[in-house]
This record gives sequence, C-alpha cells and structure tokens, in this order.
Amino acid sequence: MTDARAVVLSEFDQPVRLETFPMPEPAPGAVLAEVEFGGVCGTDVHLQAGRLPIPLPVVLGHEGVGRVRALGEGVDRDSLGVELRVGDAISWGSNIACGQCVYCRDVAEPSLCENRRVYGINRSADVAPHLTGSWADVIHLDAGSTIVRLGEDAPSRAVIALGCAGPTTVHGVLGQTPPGVGETVIVQGAGPVGLAAAMYAQLAGAARVVLVGAPAGRIDVARSHGIGDEHIEISGLSAADRVAAALELTPGGRGADLVIECTGVPPAVAEGIDLCRAGGRYLVLGQYTDHGPTPVNPHLITRKQLEVRGSWAFSARDVVQYCRTVPVLNARFELEPLVTEFGLADAQDALDAAREGRVVKAVVAA
Amino acid sequence: MTDARAVVLSEFDQPVRLETFPMPEPAPGAVLAEVEFGGVCGTDVHLQAGRLPIPLPVVLGHEGVGRVRALGEGVDRDSLGVELRVGDAISWGSNIACGQCVYCRDVAEPSLCENRRVYGINRSADVAPHLTGSWADVIHLDAGSTIVRLGEDAPSRAVIALGCAGPTTVHGVLGQTPPGVGETVIVQGAGPVGLAAAMYAQLAGAARVVLVGAPAGRIDVARSHGIGDEHIEISGLSAADRVAAALELTPGGRGADLVIECTGVPPAVAEGIDLCRAGGRYLVLGQYTDHGPTPVNPHLITRKQLEVRGSWAFSARDVVQYCRTVPVLNARFELEPLVTEFGLADAQDALDAAREGRVVKAVVAA
Amino acid sequence: MTDARAVVLSEFDQPVRLETFPMPEPAPGAVLAEVEFGGVCGTDVHLQAGRLPIPLPVVLGHEGVGRVRALGEGVDRDSLGVELRVGDAISWGSNIACGQCVYCRDVAEPSLCENRRVYGINRSADVAPHLTGSWADVIHLDAGSTIVRLGEDAPSRAVIALGCAGPTTVHGVLGQTPPGVGETVIVQGAGPVGLAAAMYAQLAGAARVVLVGAPAGRIDVARSHGIGDEHIEISGLSAADRVAAALELTPGGRGADLVIECTGVPPAVAEGIDLCRAGGRYLVLGQYTDHGPTPVNPHLITRKQLEVRGSWAFSARDVVQYCRTVPVLNARFELEPLVTEFGLADAQDALDAAREGRVVKAVVAA
Amino acid sequence: MTDARAVVLSEFDQPVRLETFPMPEPAPGAVLAEVEFGGVCGTDVHLQAGRLPIPLPVVLGHEGVGRVRALGEGVDRDSLGVELRVGDAISWGSNIACGQCVYCRDVAEPSLCENRRVYGINRSADVAPHLTGSWADVIHLDAGSTIVRLGEDAPSRAVIALGCAGPTTVHGVLGQTPPGVGETVIVQGAGPVGLAAAMYAQLAGAARVVLVGAPAGRIDVARSHGIGDEHIEISGLSAADRVAAALELTPGGRGADLVIECTGVPPAVAEGIDLCRAGGRYLVLGQYTDHGPTPVNPHLITRKQLEVRGSWAFSARDVVQYCRTVPVLNARFELEPLVTEFGLADAQDALDAAREGRVVKAVVAA
Repeated sequence: MTDARAVVLSEFDQPVRLETFPMPEPAPGAVLAEVEFGGVCGTDVHLQAGRLPIPLPVVLGHEGVGRVRALGEGVDRDSLGVELRVGDAISWGSNIACGQCVYCRDVAEPSLCENRRVYGINRSADVAPHLTGSWADVIHLDAGSTIVRLGEDAPSRAVIALGCAGPTTVHGVLGQTPPGVGETVIVQGAGPVGLAAAMYAQLAGAARVVLVGAPAGRIDVARSHGIGDEHIEISGLSAADRVAAALELTPGGRGADLVIECTGVPPAVAEGIDLCRAGGRYLVLGQYTDHGPTPVNPHLITRKQLEVRGSWAFSARDVVQYCRTVPVLNARFELEPLVTEFGLADAQDALDAAREGRVVKAVVAA
Repeated sequence: MTDARAVVLSEFDQPVRLETFPMPEPAPGAVLAEVEFGGVCGTDVHLQAGRLPIPLPVVLGHEGVGRVRALGEGVDRDSLGVELRVGDAISWGSNIACGQCVYCRDVAEPSLCENRRVYGINRSADVAPHLTGSWADVIHLDAGSTIVRLGEDAPSRAVIALGCAGPTTVHGVLGQTPPGVGETVIVQGAGPVGLAAAMYAQLAGAARVVLVGAPAGRIDVARSHGIGDEHIEISGLSAADRVAAALELTPGGRGADLVIECTGVPPAVAEGIDLCRAGGRYLVLGQYTDHGPTPVNPHLITRKQLEVRGSWAFSARDVVQYCRTVPVLNARFELEPLVTEFGLADAQDALDAAREGRVVKAVVAA
Repeated sequence: MTDARAVVLSEFDQPVRLETFPMPEPAPGAVLAEVEFGGVCGTDVHLQAGRLPIPLPVVLGHEGVGRVRALGEGVDRDSLGVELRVGDAISWGSNIACGQCVYCRDVAEPSLCENRRVYGINRSADVAPHLTGSWADVIHLDAGSTIVRLGEDAPSRAVIALGCAGPTTVHGVLGQTPPGVGETVIVQGAGPVGLAAAMYAQLAGAARVVLVGAPAGRIDVARSHGIGDEHIEISGLSAADRVAAALELTPGGRGADLVIECTGVPPAVAEGIDLCRAGGRYLVLGQYTDHGPTPVNPHLITRKQLEVRGSWAFSARDVVQYCRTVPVLNARFELEPLVTEFGLADAQDALDAAREGRVVKAVVAA
Repeated sequence: MTDARAVVLSEFDQPVRLETFPMPEPAPGAVLAEVEFGGVCGTDVHLQAGRLPIPLPVVLGHEGVGRVRALGEGVDRDSLGVELRVGDAISWGSNIACGQCVYCRDVAEPSLCENRRVYGINRSADVAPHLTGSWADVIHLDAGSTIVRLGEDAPSRAVIALGCAGPTTVHGVLGQTPPGVGETVIVQGAGPVGLAAAMYAQLAGAARVVLVGAPAGRIDVARSHGIGDEHIEISGLSAADRVAAALELTPGGRGADLVIECTGVPPAVAEGIDLCRAGGRYLVLGQYTDHGPTPVNPHLITRKQLEVRGSWAFSARDVVQYCRTVPVLNARFELEPLVTEFGLADAQDALDAAREGRVVKAVVAA
C-alpha cells in the first residue's frame, strides 16, 4: 500500500465520499495503525447534518480498532506499559487532552480540557497527516494518543461493539457515581450508553438493574444478552406509569439507590429525580445536546438529599479502563453479535442505518 | 419553682399564649433544663400560619440554650463524653432520630429518619412531659437527646445567634460539599443559613467567599461582621446582572468552585448552576419548601460535569459539630450582637419581628 | 415448649454444657426467635480458652438464623422496613450499638461504639432474659436488634455459611476500600474472612482476584467454589517466594490495586505492603488480636503513596448489606455446602472441629 | 547579559562552584526566567553528599521564584490561564510529569510518574539548555512546566519561604487527608514540612493544632508566627512522655482526628498511631528516605479502624494550589521573615547553613 483510502465529509448534508491520501510515516511518538473497524456513532450523524462546528473536510471516525502498522520513533509501549510491536491488535482513545489548560492541570479533569484534539471530528483532512479518522485504511495516531494493546480475550469486534459509549460510561458510571454491591439501579434509556450503563452496573455488583427504555426491539436485544435484570418497555406508557412501574421494582417502593439518565431527553431528568430514593444518587449522563431548560423541582433535591452528578466526555484513563473490562463484558454479555459491518465504500449506508436505528451498532471495515 | 411557664400555639393564625405546666421530673436518661434563650426561626412563623401539619397545642421553640436543672437517672455525660452537672451551660439538638428505620440503619443517614421527634414542632403539649419546646422556663430533654455542654468560649448568646441555621449549615456545607482551602465560593442568599454558609466557607479556608443577597441592611450586617469577602446586594439587579457581577469575582470569570444556594427561591437554582465552574459543586441547601418546578437546563449539568447536592435537616453529629465550632465562629465573626432578645410574655412580638425581618435573630428569654 | 435449651460456657477451659431456661416472652420492641443454626466462629474458641474478658456464665453463639416465634409489642417490620410475622425466616446482627457515645453520635461510626452489647459474648446468662446467644432453641433479640427477614433466595444455610465473616467483610471490604471494576485484588489468607473478601471483590467487578493462603484443602475448596480467580497455596513457600508469585499475577508486575489482609498474622502486613502497587490500597482486616509490633517499612507507605485502612467489627448496616447480598453470593459461589452441622448437644464437638480446622464452617442446630 | 551564572555541583562531597553558561533563547512553549530567589532544601544537602543517584554536573536549585525574561513561541498564559508578559513575577513547579506512563495516565496520579524531569536534580548541566536549576541568574523552564504568575499579595520572598515544603504539604495534607473544620490535629515534626502542615491545618479550620517537635528555637519561631495552637518541645522527653503530653491536648484524651507525620524518623510512625483517635486518620508525609523497617503494631490499625495515608512528592495542581494560598498564609503567619538570603557566590555557605540548621530557610539570590 502506498496510498490509503479514507471516508471524507466535505460538505454538510451531503453524502460522504471515499478519497485517497498518501500513506504517511508515523511522526516521532506516533503510531500508524491499520484500521480493522471504525465505529459509527450518533455523533457522526450529527456531524454530517452540520449540527456541530467542525472544520471541513474531515476524515470521519472517532471510534476504532486495528493493528500497528508502524511505530514512530521512541514508541515501544502502550498506555499500560505493555510492549508494542508491529502487527499487534490495538484500540485507541478518540481524544488527546492538552495537558496544559486549567482543567487539565489545576482541576486535574482532562475530560473538561479546553483544547482537546479529537480524531474524526475536529481534525482537518487538509492538514498533514490527513489520515486522522478511523473510517480509513490507516489512521495516524499522534504522540500523546491513548493506545491499548488488546489481548486475545478482547476481540476487536467486541471492543468496537460499544464504541465511545464504553469509555463514556466508564467515565460517568464508574467515575462519578460508582454503583455499590447490592444496590438497586435504574437506567433510563436503552441506546448504546444506556446498555453500557446497565452492563457496568451489573458488573459492579448491583443487586438489581432496571432498564427503562424503547423501542421494543432494543429492549429485546438487552433481554437476550442479559443486559439488565428487569426491563420496562416504555412505548405507550405515560411518565407517571413509567415512574410507577420502575418504583415498584425498588426496595419498599422507596426508589433506587442510583438512577442513570442516558436518554438525552430533557424531561427525563425530572422523572429520574422521582425514581431516586432519599439519599440516592442521580447521574445525568445523556444530556450531551443543549435542548434548553425543562421543569425540575429543586425541593426534591433538598428534601431527598440527593447527589446529582453530571459527566462529560472521557479521558485517557477511561479508555484504558474500558479496554481492560472488555474481556469480562464480552464473556458476560456477548458483545460481538451487536455489531453490523459495512464496507468502507458503503460508509454512507452505515450512517443511514445508524440514523434510522436499523442496527444496534454499525461499523465500517476497511 | 413548682410550675413552669411555656409559650403555647393552640390554634393556627392566632397569637401564641403563655401557659403554665407542672414542673416535671426528668425521666431516666433525660435532662431537665432551664432555658436561657429559645431561638425564633422562620419555621416558627410557618408553624403559626398553619403551613405544616403539626399536632396542636404545641409548646414552640426548637432552638435553645440553657442550664441543667436536673439529671435523669443514668445521665452523667453529654454527647461528647464530657461530665455533666446541675448548673452546667448546655445546648441541645432539636430532633431525635428513631435509630431503627431504614434511613437510620441501612442508609446510616439519620437526617432522613422517617420518625424524628422534634422539640417545639411535632410534640403535643397535651402529652406529658408537656414541656417539649424551648420557649419556656424549662424543657424536658428526653433520653436520646443530643446535649452539648458549653465551655466559656461558647457563650449562650453566641450559640443561639445562628439557631438551627448552625447545624443545618454544618450538615449541608461541611457534610455534603466541604469547601476546600483556596477555593472560590459563592453563597446565594443572606438569611441566617446564607450567613452561616459564608462563615463556614471562610472557616474552611476558602480563598474568596462572595455573598449575593438582600436586603441592603442584611448585607451591611454581613460586611460589618466580616461575613463574606465580597458582597453583591441584589436589589434592583436582574438575574443576568447578578450572575455577571458574581462571575466577575471568580478566577478568570470561569465560575466558582462551590456555589451554595440558601434562598428558598426556586429560580435561584438555574442561576446557581450558571455560577459554577466546569467541574464545580452546587449545594441546594435552601429549598426546604415545595414551591413546585422551575426551569433548569440539564445540559449544563452534563456539560459542566457538575456535582449537585441536596441537604436535608441535620442530625446529632451536626449539632455537636456546630457547638464545637461556636468558639472560633464567635471569635472571628462576633455572633452575640446579632441577637435581639424578647421576654417570654412577648413571644408574639418576637414572631412578628421575625416575620417582618425587623431583626437578624430574635430570641425569647425566660 | 415451655423451656428452652441453651449451650452455656460456665468456666474457661471447660467443656460447654446444655442447660435449660424458662421460655421468655419478648419484651416491648424485642423479637423472640427460634434458632435454626447458630454459627461457630474462631472467636468462640478464644472465648472458651478464656482469652477475652467476658462475664460467665454465657450462652454462646453470636451468629444465627432462625424463625420468628413471637413479636414484642410495637414490632411489625424488620430493619429494612419489610413486614415481619410469626414464622418468618430471619437473621440478626450480633451486636447493638448504644447510639449515645461519642463514636455512635459524633463520629457516626457505630462499629467503634464503646458500649456494644453482643449476643453470645458479653451478655450474662444469669440475667433475664438469659437466652442471649444463638446456640439455643430460642434467642431473645432485644429492642434495637438488627433483624432481616430472609427471602427464599437467601436460604438459612447459606446465610450462616459465612457467619460473622460476612458482615465483617462487608464493613471492611465494601465499607473501607470498595474494590473497583476492573481492579486486581490480592487477598492474603483463606480463612472465612479471606474467602468472603475474595467473593466480595469478585462481586464488585474486580478483573482478577488472587487468593494467597493455606492449607491446601482450604485452597481446594476455594477453587472448586470459584472463590478467587488465581490461587497461591503458600505451604512451604518463603515470604519472598509468596510475594514474587503474587506480583507476577499483577499487571506489569507492579502490584495490586487493592490488597486485603485476612490472616491475623502480624508479619503479613509488611508482605501486604510489598504487594500493593504505587497509589494502591491496603486493607488490614485480620489483625483482630493484639500480637504486638512487627517490622514495617514506613518509607514504602510514603514512597508508594499508599492508602492503608483498618476495619473493626461491623454495625447494623453491614448486617443488612450482608443479608441483601446473600442471594447473589449463593448463586455464584454455592455457599450451602460449606456448612457442617452439629446438634446442640454436640456443641463441644463443633468447637473442637472449629479449633482443629476440621471443617470449613461448623454450625450448631437445635 | 549575554552569559548567565549558575551554581554547579560537579563532584559529590565537594563544594559547589559558580560557572558561566551562554544565555539561551526559550524553546517553543518554554519560558526563560530571571531568578530572584532559589530555595535551599534538605534535599540539596543530600545531593551534595551523593546520597541520591543524579547525573553530574548539575545546576542546583529545584525551588525558585523570579521574573519572565522571555516567552517561548506559543506561550501567553500561565498555568491558571492568566496572561503572561515579560517582567511578570512568577513561580514554577520543580518537576514535569511525562503524561504518558501508567501513573500519569491510568492511575491519574502524576506525582507517581516514572519519568519525571526535575529542575536542579536530574537534569545534566552538560546538556543544552544547561540552565536547568534555580541557583542561577536565569532558568530555562521547558514546555510543560507549571508556571504561576504571582500577584502583589504573593511576594516572592513569601513564596520561597516554604519552598517545596509548600506543594509537598498541599499534596499530602490537602490532597490525601484534608483536615476538617473543628478537628484536632497533631503535627509530628517542626521542620519546613511540619510548619507548613500546621499552617494548612489551621487554614482548613482545625479547632486545635498541636505541634510536637524540636529544637526549642524552631518551636519558638512557630509560636511567634502563630504556627500551631499548642506546642510541645520534645527535647529530653521520652516517647511515652511525648505521647501523653499530646493526648492530653485532645478531646477527652481520646486522640487526634488527624495526625501528620513530618519527621522522617521511622519510630515516629508507631508514636503517631498512638496519637490517633479511633476512626482517625494518619498521614505519613515525612518518610522520604528509606531507613528500613521499624516496629509497628498492626492490631492498632484494625482496632482503631485507622486510615493511614502516604503522600509522595507533588504535581502541577499542588504547585498551583500552593501559589494560590500564599497570600492568605502570608497574611496570617508572616512568611517573609523566615527567609535568610545568601548571594549566588555564597551558595556553599547557604548549603552549610541548611545542613547545620542555622537558619529556618536559606535562599540563594542572584
């Protein structure tokens, strides 16, 4: 290979196209990877629709797994200190924090970094090394990237099955409101983040995980994979019905120890507060988009003495932690069948499938 | 004394009256105390107006300081293990948690106890020992009461100056969102809880405490006592102006590390969220009354990765902690001049003064 | 039944004897329970040997499960708020904290209570209600006892299988150093507490739990029940060999995220510190007996920036939490076969079996 | 200035010498600073004695304050986002973490970084930019350095007065075991770290800080600056006397809520454990040097349910936090008079003064 193909978004609301770029050498500290799968995420749908301010053209793909093609000068270990060689299976984090801003340094929370570089999102395809998205034959992983070598118990198809919902959930669920052994957890929403949240709550020893969401097909997938202990399919249910049905599954009807919002729908927040027991915790994980205000009763926060946490994005440690937990997630929940594969040339089909909810997880394969 | 006088509320919306009860003996485990000061709290105003479901008649007064008149069988120490003798100056907690319910036992958060007995509020004056409020010559402190002997550096007038705002703030500010050394803290509201919150934030080493409230007279009191480092008097300011003025006083205009809501006004919550920096904490301490929902933008909780905490009531340890910190609060902020004294017979005047905001802290003295 | 039999220790170093007491009525707030199983614990062996300062005679048995025989006045719920009726299967906590001392109230850590009443240990059989240990037909559970109704998924034999090692481990492992999802955990010691610690670490989502202990039979039991992921049988190994073998099973040989000491042998502590990675946690859970000092290198605590935690006893919430997790522990690790049953009349045999390590868990059955 | 002078250590156990290097340009991302004061630390004494494995020759000085002489390409803000111009007063952190190793990334604790570059310690003077220590006219602060612009309320002499004891204490005391408002704190040791620990405990609102140390002169300095509330000068006291004297100053003689070890003497650790109350915390902050094992009774860790924490070094956020708290430290404790100034040419005198304990804080001035 002297050239590499990549899926490029050049204009908003227009189909993506396959283009060709010269094969780069890895810069010092960088890694050049052959992509096996590039994940398709709801954010990619938003990007194409022009809902986020990004530079164009861009090589899409912020989720990826693949193999080391070439190691830049000075690179011989992955982010866990494991030796790295050409041909090794790896996954990588989508973003690189600057390490210098107030949030990186003083607050020590790189997920809030003001200058993150994100593969497949805010990297222009016009600028070398061009190949900065995972919907491509190869991707140039800059110095500072988070790279994790995958063992045999973490097959690439399993790693890509959760995509960025994996580290997002690690950052939120494990990082902000770690579920306790024996707790009752309610998850609002059955999208990728909701499914991942339910899995991690189960992994953390929750006594009962109640998954509340739609559509029926998604709930069926959850049930058949053992994701969640109890399921409430909400189609046709009023908010009051949903709340009543979920509370009934909590100890004494008092509410859950932990409620995890993964819907992105603002009114879900008031509902989630109703689902918490006094002294409980509420993780607002899904409100990534600004849809403006929604009515919330702050008296309940005081009266129930709640802990309400937000969670934004993720950082290097969450990527590492996600990769480390894939083996046990895969053994317990069988992640690989969740994936539907599209060729590089069919990337627009993959985007359409994601937008229409036709598949659980679309991925693009070189 | 063979009889004891007490201020009784017999009918809602009617003036309180002084009545006489037979002097009780302390039950085993109990303490009979001569009241020096009974504090008047906003809740007392609500009680008289019939806004809370309480048994009538009731001897009012849930805040109090006084002296030991008689020790019940088996009592020889206060709640800190300090020897207790007749004549000792003491303060006491307003409530006794049941120790048996799910919140006392499993959740281990007695402030959420479902069966709290509260002096001056949910104890009927018709039932022996009758004298169960602090607006009286004596109060019967049941077995299980939290009692703290006061040293000379904690004069009774200083202890009563904050009243139940003291332990309420300890429970909220120190218990839920302890301010860190060097942090910037914004306090919304300049009522008793707001003043106490500002003082505790200063005590905890906050680099800058910004007090945002009204009316001007209250802010002047704060300023003259050194309560808060910066003051924003909000009369005539729009919400946007208030937010802008406060943000300007935070590092880089990024917002405060910690914002403490002490207003009881629902729209303050959306404003408080705007005042938090990314990664900051927000304590919803003042929403004691249910005024229904208010618009809140949940995207900000996610985007800023906030920690929003509620805080309800207080328990034994907060009372103890409050009394323990009175000496240093008093040395630093001069609490005693905040108190305005009324005779037992003038209790209705005291209530009126509190309702009309004519005084900073009204107390009733035997 | 008008009388009840109970196993009494009347003199140190002498065999226990079965005696008969009049059947009591439950006091107000109390519960009278028919005992199904009373657990035999290492502490019982120490009690008989006179190694602890206790009043004699004493009805032994601080671990127990059984059924409600009679409810005292005012009792209609268990400690989780679940309705309680005659005939219900229950378990109970061994101790009742005083609720009044500095540790109960100010520190809010009832496991450190200075005045705990403990069934089967510090309650004299000479004082009514006499039946205050579980090695008996019935036990009188005083007002304030922690009582949990057992569902069908928590069979009594499973609950008693861990005995007080259950709540002890909940208090230590879940309460002081909760294992994180994906962590590597080393457990030192394969006695009841070590086995329980390994189980709870697995339940909490640890990626790998390494159980280091002896004798071989105990390790075999662990292996066959799936307790621990890796096992190091230490008979014949030097301390250096043990450390090397365990470190080899940690990521990059850097040490474990969490090490849990459950041996009771002082030199294990220095060894455990060697097993922690930099930034790791070490739980000193097993040093219940004072064997005096052992050499420890404090430089390692500084250099590795360790968090070393002790854990003493347990309180109501740990008992509740233990009972709540029995169903999942039993489903995953099959607890019931760990139990060996002895008749009440054979209580001395049960004690001997426990002392000689002939059984994993001896219990006495009425 | 076309050349710059710097104090160089070329051979262990030999006097340091002033050498001259060509004035460098700041590299991209770097800052060239004119040094006002370079602090002399106990570590410098150890370095000269050859007790640490460092490259020679080295420009000494890991503590420093000064002014911006030139800004490298791309630098226009300090680590708090404040604008930076030539001539601004600044301080800087001694070390730069790699940001890539397991400790930087997965553990997210850069103070444990395996590849730290440390000014004045592990940077060879033979390698450009040569000027990599603060005992010099100028220092080249590489890209990635932590730089804080000092306001007028943080005079350089105050910042250097604590030297690296400042951020070390922030990292340990505020980072690992933050003192609570109203707590009793015992500090073992009255060296720079002990003094700083006492100050930060006072700043955090401790009710009583007991400083236990020697020699008398150092304790007198503490007393006269208001550092610590109570002082125990230990010369001539046995360990048992010291413990008894300190316990007497704790509530009920039960021990301190928090004990902070700042002695570097291994037997202090057993003593410190005796000083903790049940449920208390113990920070092992001073055991920087490996002096081997000392007898410790692990039963006390279990029985008292202690939290024992180590603390190693510090990172960017601690430097920032230290600088941010200097104004209030200086206002409260008057830091500037603690400093004794030596000329660059007298650096060996400064080292001797530090080794002999002739001064509280020696600094070298250009």
